Amino acid sequence: MSRWEPNARGRLEQAALDLFEERGFDQTTVEDIATRAGLTKRTFFRHFADKREVLFGGDPGSALREVFVTGLAAAPPDAAPLDAVAAALDAGADFFTEERRPFARRRQRVVGAHPELQERELVKLASISSALAEGLRERGVDEPAASLAAETGLAVFRVAFERWVAPGEERDLTALTRDSLATLRAVAAV
Amino acid sequence: MSRWEPNARGRLEQAALDLFEERGFDQTTVEDIATRAGLTKRTFFRHFADKREVLFGGDPGSALREVFVTGLAAAPPDAAPLDAVAAALDAGADFFTEERRPFARRRQRVVGAHPELQERELVKLASISSALAEGLRERGVDEPAASLAAETGLAVFRVAFERWVAPGEERDLTALTRDSLATLRAVAAV
Repeated sequence: MSRWEPNARGRLEQAALDLFEERGFDQTTVEDIATRAGLTKRTFFRHFADKREVLFGGDPGSALREVFVTGLAAAPPDAAPLDAVAAALDAGADFFTEERRPFARRRQRVVGAHPELQERELVKLASISSALAEGLRERGVDEPAASLAAETGLAVFRVAFERWVAPGEERDLTALTRDSLATLRAVAAV
Repeated sequence: MSRWEPNARGRLEQAALDLFEERGFDQTTVEDIATRAGLTKRTFFRHFADKREVLFGGDPGSALREVFVTGLAAAPPDAAPLDAVAAALDAGADFFTEERRPFARRRQRVVGAHPELQERELVKLASISSALAEGLRERGVDEPAASLAAETGLAVFRVAFERWVAPGEERDLTALTRDSLATLRAVAAV
């Protein structure tokens, strides 16, 4: 019998991050996370496949990937490939509101300290890049331009995100993403 | 007592790829690989940390990362960031000679079929990107231009490499890398 747990996913994410910081990733079990969140292991596994996944929104529930793909689809049909990708990045940046920044900063430190979490992060980003490339091909962009525009867009977003979570940074992610894209265009132009 | 094993690394790579294709990655043990190569487990572990690593050249023996970094260092001091990265990519492309292509094609299929191998591949590529970004900063390139140029370069190389190992592709990796970089510049220019 499953019962509805208000914001179970968010509570599990918060509990996992707390425990990873306190004890380290290796010393934390799924049971620890569920207990800290006031939930059961069973509830945990309804949302996440394993303790790595809890910092990545669950799979395939990649809400972030959907945000990017929807942003791409909303770009004008005649937009140039990188302009369409820019629309996707704007949508991605909107997803990370100011309220999310403290959690994102802590999460970034934990991920950066654990190779197995970095791997998962890279896989997630690669899946977004693949989805964007597919979306560009559907818009009539040829290969390799579609893959290159998608990969470049993700590189821009990754760099902007790292700036966003850096200590003391106050600009929002939209501004940082646009600034990074402008820098990329300048780098590619010379 | 260790004895010298001629080309132990190459024999282990070949044996691992054969077995991963025949039985699948999950059904292959380090012992199977060593036995097929006519070597001992002990010799295997002198070269590779685990059975994933055998397809990635061993760590930190990342010969490929060194090739890129050396290529970057050889670029003229006043080269623009992406031109310096282009020199690194040329060096990387030279590393994959025509004789390597059949092995690379088989390896690509095995890696593509196993998420845990894809993860390792992404980590390796990210480590090359980080090394290039560091090399660019040492050349006086500011952030975020250094990270963006490095990430973009790796994206170009990854796309070119996928084309190189695609069935029926006959152009060499240097030509494909340069073509992909030109496409990236064109994508970024509009």
